[in-house]
Amino acid sequence: MQTRLLPAEVVTEHTGVAEVVEAVADAFAADARGDAQMPAKSYIDLPQYNGDFRSMPAYLDAGEWDAAAVKWVNVHPDNELQFGLPTVMGTIVYSDPETAFPLALMDGTTITRLRTGAAAAVATRELAREDAASLGLVGAGTQAHTQLEAIATVRDIEEVVVADADPEAVEEFVAAFADRFDVRGGTIEEATRCDVVSTTTPVEEPIVESVGPETHVNAIGADAAGKHEIADDVLEAATIVIDDYEQCTHSGEINVPWSEGLLDDADIYAELGEIVAGRIPGRDDPDGPEGVTIFDSTGLAIQDVAAAHVAYEHAEEADAGTPFDLVGTEI
Amino acid sequence: MQTRLLPAEVVTEHTGVAEVVEAVADAFAADARGDAQMPAKSYIDLPQYNGDFRSMPAYLDAGEWDAAAVKWVNVHPDNELQFGLPTVMGTIVYSDPETAFPLALMDGTTITRLRTGAAAAVATRELAREDAASLGLVGAGTQAHTQLEAIATVRDIEEVVVADADPEAVEEFVAAFADRFDVRGGTIEEATRCDVVSTTTPVEEPIVESVGPETHVNAIGADAAGKHEIADDVLEAATIVIDDYEQCTHSGEINVPWSEGLLDDADIYAELGEIVAGRIPGRDDPDGPEGVTIFDSTGLAIQDVAAAHVAYEHAEEADAGTPFDLVGTEI
Repeated sequence: MQTRLLPAEVVTEHTGVAEVVEAVADAFAADARGDAQMPAKSYIDLPQYNGDFRSMPAYLDAGEWDAAAVKWVNVHPDNELQFGLPTVMGTIVYSDPETAFPLALMDGTTITRLRTGAAAAVATRELAREDAASLGLVGAGTQAHTQLEAIATVRDIEEVVVADADPEAVEEFVAAFADRFDVRGGTIEEATRCDVVSTTTPVEEPIVESVGPETHVNAIGADAAGKHEIADDVLEAATIVIDDYEQCTHSGEINVPWSEGLLDDADIYAELGEIVAGRIPGRDDPDGPEGVTIFDSTGLAIQDVAAAHVAYEHAEEADAGTPFDLVGTEI
Repeated sequence: MQTRLLPAEVVTEHTGVAEVVEAVADAFAADARGDAQMPAKSYIDLPQYNGDFRSMPAYLDAGEWDAAAVKWVNVHPDNELQFGLPTVMGTIVYSDPETAFPLALMDGTTITRLRTGAAAAVATRELAREDAASLGLVGAGTQAHTQLEAIATVRDIEEVVVADADPEAVEEFVAAFADRFDVRGGTIEEATRCDVVSTTTPVEEPIVESVGPETHVNAIGADAAGKHEIADDVLEAATIVIDDYEQCTHSGEINVPWSEGLLDDADIYAELGEIVAGRIPGRDDPDGPEGVTIFDSTGLAIQDVAAAHVAYEHAEEADAGTPFDLVGTEI
């Protein structure tokens, strides 16, 4: 039996955003139903290199398909300056749950971007106004690109406002999407008046001071204790939906006001999976939330498994990547 | 930058047993010094497939080298009969700790065998008589092969007695080693009179009822609650060395008598790393243990990292395996 090798280039080419959004929605729903297993992330801290590794194993049974994988991913903030390497690199071993045969070894960096965009899209589908047509982006980096790509699959986005302290990043972003959207640079205030907003910055002092009256916000940037992008009073007034209780309260957008006692259990409306599974109403339901909604996204291992599933199935279908005999079986 | 792909065949060809023994000894010593990080194994249980996955991340700093990796490994006992696949398959992502760049993706099945043999060899070096010349093997499977290969690098083994309920397995084993050792099939009683003994069976009722008066035993088989190969009175009378307290008391050779209260902390002489690091005497020390010694081996993630380090370094030197652009960096 052959294991398929899927480098970044192949994953990018063969993994459609819309399908990843569907698979990630399935994953959230499976989790809410109790059909997923996701042991806590294991950390290896390497202060001598100013970096860490995280091991993220998961299994999910989406009904029509099931999948298992581990992602081995790092954060080494000095990489770019010191070595010309990405801060974050991921590698995924994707296995057949029935036999555990390693079906694919794939780049996990691309998968991480795709699944993060997809989670925001799933939240946007459940929480943004049906007629949302404008997207504000705070931060114009790689994640912002994937946010737009993914969210545009669930809402008819026409207007995009992108805010970033780096004018070059804004220019690049606008150039990349000018042919498909009415896209322009703007202030954070302008971006956060849009119907949907995604924030993807690593700040420790909030930079979003206000948002539109019915805006849905995807808060993506906070991924460690001490980070938050959105002012406390905006969070306190909003309906907050999280991806995972443990992760969000420890390292998500809400972690700082949470640790200060400004937010507590009563301020959390739902985990996203509960809405996707239909157990708690989304905005389209008369009993669902109105006004500002905020999705606190920390990133779950089941999202990686779901995205890896799409990547593998498509590559297999297209016979893309390189099959090889990793295990040395004779069948 | 390129990631090196190392399938089973390449790992087997380029990973010398003697060097793995040294690297695994370094790993045990690093662990005893506090220079290793080894988060608890994460389990994913899939009763619907009668199988499980384990994620084993680790980092170790051996002084002259350091290394980080994750092994993703399974146990699916029905694989061979149902699918013609191995019960256990492993895949390792081996990374540069300084940048986290994935240096190699390698077959972890071969690595698992090698590092398990190597741990027994390290224990044998510390705990068997210096003049040990006979090796008894209880169980004649694949692990028995690696036990002999590895132990023969630390003691001048001449005579080998192999016991197995399956005469074909014994025959195969004898044929494989007849040109290098005085090797023959025998009863469990005959095998366990040897100077060194390795037990590699998955039994839940002890099959080793007695051993020689100064025999060193490597107890390899027990890897789950309920399994044990050696009779309680043999364990109670012996000097017991373990690889890891948590793992051994929960799933190692001692787990059953431990859970029944027959063994407790007072019966554990040392963790192997403490002896390798020179903190607790081995048999060659006048203050060290005499009589029967038993090493309870459950298998640690740092052993995998150490063996993967040897595999990668040798493959790199020989330009073996297939380098490819996994991450898609431009450098």
